[in-house]
Parts: sequence; C-alpha cells; structure tokens
Amino acid sequence: MEREFVEWLVRHVPSDPRLEVPAGDDAAVLRPPASRRTVVTVDMLMEGTDFVLGPDCPPEAVGHKALAVSLSDLAAMGARPEAVVVAVALPSRGGESLGRRIHTGLAALAARHDVAIAGGDTNAWDGPLVVSVTAIGSVPPGRAWRRDGARVGDRLLVTGACGGSLLGRHLAVAPRCREAAGIAERFQVHAAIDVSDGLSLDIARMMAASGTGAVLDLGAIPIHPDAVTMSRQAGDSRSPLEHALGDGEDFELVLAMAPEVAAAAVAASGTEALDVPLTIIGDVIEASGLFVREHDGALAPLVPRGFLHALDG
Amino acid sequence: MEREFVEWLVRHVPSDPRLEVPAGDDAAVLRPPASRRTVVTVDMLMEGTDFVLGPDCPPEAVGHKALAVSLSDLAAMGARPEAVVVAVALPSRGGESLGRRIHTGLAALAARHDVAIAGGDTNAWDGPLVVSVTAIGSVPPGRAWRRDGARVGDRLLVTGACGGSLLGRHLAVAPRCREAAGIAERFQVHAAIDVSDGLSLDIARMMAASGTGAVLDLGAIPIHPDAVTMSRQAGDSRSPLEHALGDGEDFELVLAMAPEVAAAAVAASGTEALDVPLTIIGDVIEASGLFVREHDGALAPLVPRGFLHALDG
Repeated sequence: MEREFVEWLVRHVPSDPRLEVPAGDDAAVLRPPASRRTVVTVDMLMEGTDFVLGPDCPPEAVGHKALAVSLSDLAAMGARPEAVVVAVALPSRGGESLGRRIHTGLAALAARHDVAIAGGDTNAWDGPLVVSVTAIGSVPPGRAWRRDGARVGDRLLVTGACGGSLLGRHLAVAPRCREAAGIAERFQVHAAIDVSDGLSLDIARMMAASGTGAVLDLGAIPIHPDAVTMSRQAGDSRSPLEHALGDGEDFELVLAMAPEVAAAAVAASGTEALDVPLTIIGDVIEASGLFVREHDGALAPLVPRGFLHALDG
Repeated sequence: MEREFVEWLVRHVPSDPRLEVPAGDDAAVLRPPASRRTVVTVDMLMEGTDFVLGPDCPPEAVGHKALAVSLSDLAAMGARPEAVVVAVALPSRGGESLGRRIHTGLAALAARHDVAIAGGDTNAWDGPLVVSVTAIGSVPPGRAWRRDGARVGDRLLVTGACGGSLLGRHLAVAPRCREAAGIAERFQVHAAIDVSDGLSLDIARMMAASGTGAVLDLGAIPIHPDAVTMSRQAGDSRSPLEHALGDGEDFELVLAMAPEVAAAAVAASGTEALDVPLTIIGDVIEASGLFVREHDGALAPLVPRGFLHALDG
C-alpha cells in the first residue's frame, strides 16, 4: 500500500531544525537562513535512460545518484545545500521495497551533506522507475557562481580528474559541495559549471553563456585513471584524453577565475583548508568556441564532445 | 534536439524580479521575501495514471494541472506561491512539440498566480510523459496551516463544492491560492488540507494527524452540479452526496477553525473581500475517525471514501 510506504518514509526521515513543518503535510515549511538567497534545482532520472537497475546498479545507487546530481548543481552555483524534496514513480509490483532502498541510498548521502529531507510525492504506476529530486540551497546575495560570468583573461580550472566515469563513478557520484564551499569562502569565482555531459561540452556551454571562447591546454587536462582503463578496453578507440574531454558524468567543477586568484587557489589546493585538487586547464579569450594552441602558436578549433540528449521534433 | 527546446524554453520564460539568477544556469537563485518561511511541495503526474492525452486532455491541460496541484498544496498551507521548477520526461518522438504545449499551459497558470518559473530539467526517453512540478511559496513564521492542528470543538469548513470532478474539473483545476490568502489575512485557521483524494478521506487524514475525530453534517455538504450530473449517468450507482464525499480531485480546501472564527468567516464569505463560498460541514470531536449523527442523536461511523493509491509490496 502506498499509504503505508509513505508512513514508513515519514517515520524514517530524520528530523531537522531547519524544518518548521516536516514531511507529511501538504507541503514542508523551511526556515531559510538569514540574509541568503534561495538556490533551487531539479533533476529527473529515468530507468532505462539514466540507469539500468541490476547487480551493478541497485536501488540504493539510484537514490544516491538522484540526490548527488542535484547537489552537484548546487555546488556549481557555489551554494550550500539545505533541503530536498523527492518525487518518485515506482513500478506497482515491488515498488515498496524499491522505494525503501532508494530512500536508504538517498538518505545516506543527505546525512553526509547535512541536507534536510523535506518531503516528496510517492506514486505507483505500470511504468519504469522515475526519480525527481529538487534541491534547495542558499548563497549570499550576488555571490552565486553563474555560468555566464567568465571574463576574457580568466583562467579555467577543474577540480579532480575527468574521464571513464562509466566504470562506476557515474553512479557513485561525489558532489563537490564541501569543495565549492571552501573555494567560495576564500576565492572569487567569476563563473562555474559542473561536468555532467562532458568536460569540453560543458566548458563550451560556459563560454557560450559568457560570450567568450577558451583555449584549452590539452597537456594539462587531469585524466582520471578510469579514462586510461577504458581506453585500454577491447573495442575502445578513444585515447584517455578523449575520454576526459567527452565522457561526462564526472561531476567535477569547472571554474573561471582571474589569473592571480587562480594561481592562489591552485597553491592552496590539496591543503587541509582546501582539500581538493585544482588544475589550470585553459584561458578565456575573446572568441567563440573552444581552441587548442598548435606547435606554431596558432589556434585550432576544438570540437566540444559530450553527451547530447536526443529529442525529435 | 533537446538543447534547442531548452533554449526555446529559456527564451519563453518570463523574467521575474524575484529571480537573481533566472532559468538556464545550473540552478536558479531566488530572492526570498523578508521575514517569511519557505514552503516547498512536489507533485509528479504520469501519463496513463494521472491523465490520458487525447482530445479531452491536450498537453496544455497537463501543464496546467501539473502546476495547479502543486499550487493547491501551497494554498492548503496558507502559503503564497513564489516560484516553480519543472522536470519533464518527454517521449523522444514528438517530445518537443509536446513540451512546448505543456509549457504553454503551465506558464498561463503561473502568470495568473504571479508565480516565477525558475527553471527545470528536460529529458527525453522511450516512455510515457512524466511531469514533476516543485512549487515554492512563503508564509510568515509559525503561520503555516498544518494538517495536524485541528482542536476538539473546532468547526470544519470547505470552500466551494465537491464531487463529479471527472467531468472536467480534475483537469481544469483552479487552485484556491487567492482564497487561501484572503482567509489567512483575516481569520485564524487551526488546520487545513486540500481535497485531492476525496473529501471524506482527506478530512479523515486531517483528523488522524490531529489526533481527533469529526462529525460530518451530511445535509450541509456542498454538492457540485457535476456530482448530480454524474449520478444521473447510466451505470452510475452513487448518489450526488456519495460523489461529493469520495470523488476527490476537487482541490477545495478543508479548514478547521474555532466556532466563532468559523461563523465570522462564513459571514464574510462571498463578499468582495473574501470571494469564495465557505460552508460549515462538521465538528471536530474527541474521537478517532469520522461519524454522522443519526436521527436519535447517536453517532454512527462513516467510512471515508476516496482514491487510494495501490502499491504492491
């Protein structure tokens, strides 16, 4: 029974001092932090499209990922996560057990990031599993990291390393919330985006939004060991670098910063105060699109690669 | 192309002074109203379960309803709507046209209720249409209408009339946001719920949450003309009253108020200041469940009727 499951959920959602009215009512009531803006993002994951349930992807992993991708969006805004609401369409048969396990995965990540579970909507149908997570965060006024704020002369940085996420990191997503908070506290960021569809594609999006272009230093791109592993697999025709540039679902952050700020951030990275690798991978230029510098110093266009979602007219 | 559709959407979302960062970034940034709580609710509608696309239910109606049911939840909290984010899973074939028409229906209702469209997530898949709307509202601290606040001695009121919503009102939902604001401004409400699954079932939920029972005055229940029409249809074995008590999707508000407040609210209802019919339909008592009073004055149990969502273990 859906009602029993909802009652189970309401009992299993931890209480949180930010909730004036917790889950279980027509809506939740949050105490928003004083003098901060509200940041809101929603992501929907669909079975068969975003994940395939099975031994490699148990329901707990779906709950984890559904929350993680929304938290990554908050991190990409330099926002602190506050609360989430979760809507699910569960298959009628076996839906209750599925729902409990999704909640378990989601709640564990919520606890790790101190996010209040404020409520949701639980539905049953004769269709595949759909999970939609709306995450609410906060940021001081005027301090959100927009994607359209990159300036000519800025340096581009990326957290961590990219490529080969399909080997497991696309599910075990570690949203860069704490790292974003550490950076936001100490350094001025002009623009940011998270790497969801592909490092080069997401950089191209930031550049297009900012009305700028970028020269990437391909030798500097941090390549994840998974990208090397994938590249060596039978039938794989792409180099580790190509995987890093185009695989996506890395959920690392790309940041645009003034050169002196970028240098200071890189110098501070890896310390206890800023426990995240930061690498300078390019420069923002007055142009349109992405480029690489050839041996003779000339700029050659780089076609952005990544996951483009198909939708027929 | 999904990207082109998203770009179309971002162009067609009206700008709003409440948005510091509008749709199109990793997340939206809202300026929350000063000294108010944040109210948040999510509802997911699935094709084939909540609606069947066709001549009687065009995509615009789905967009309208998806927003309307979330706004109704805000009204049931006594909250003022502020902003929404919308996640959709569109069928790959024909999804772009479908998405535009859903947006058209949703945006028209958003404009009518002065709700900012803050962003969303657009997806394509080989599955049925799924729409998830998260609505964000605001309410003064401590003033949200909870469903667990009914007190013994309170009177129960309902806005409008119930029953027969399947004849069209289940799609053309008119959320009682303005009416809720008018009531909240002038009268103290102890508890509220919106009639989604059935008048008697939703009252029973309010009573269960409040640890109280209710005696309903069946002769006072406002019966919608659609309930009479449905009752007369061939094969329909239920009375207009039974339709009113159990059909659901009326999206009227049930309110619990102290007797003198309830009387004042009814006296004020239908005036320009409070342009909504209000009817007293029962009393909150120290008991568990719903009751009606028999001719001899004794209380007889009333089994709540309504839509129960099925979900097998």
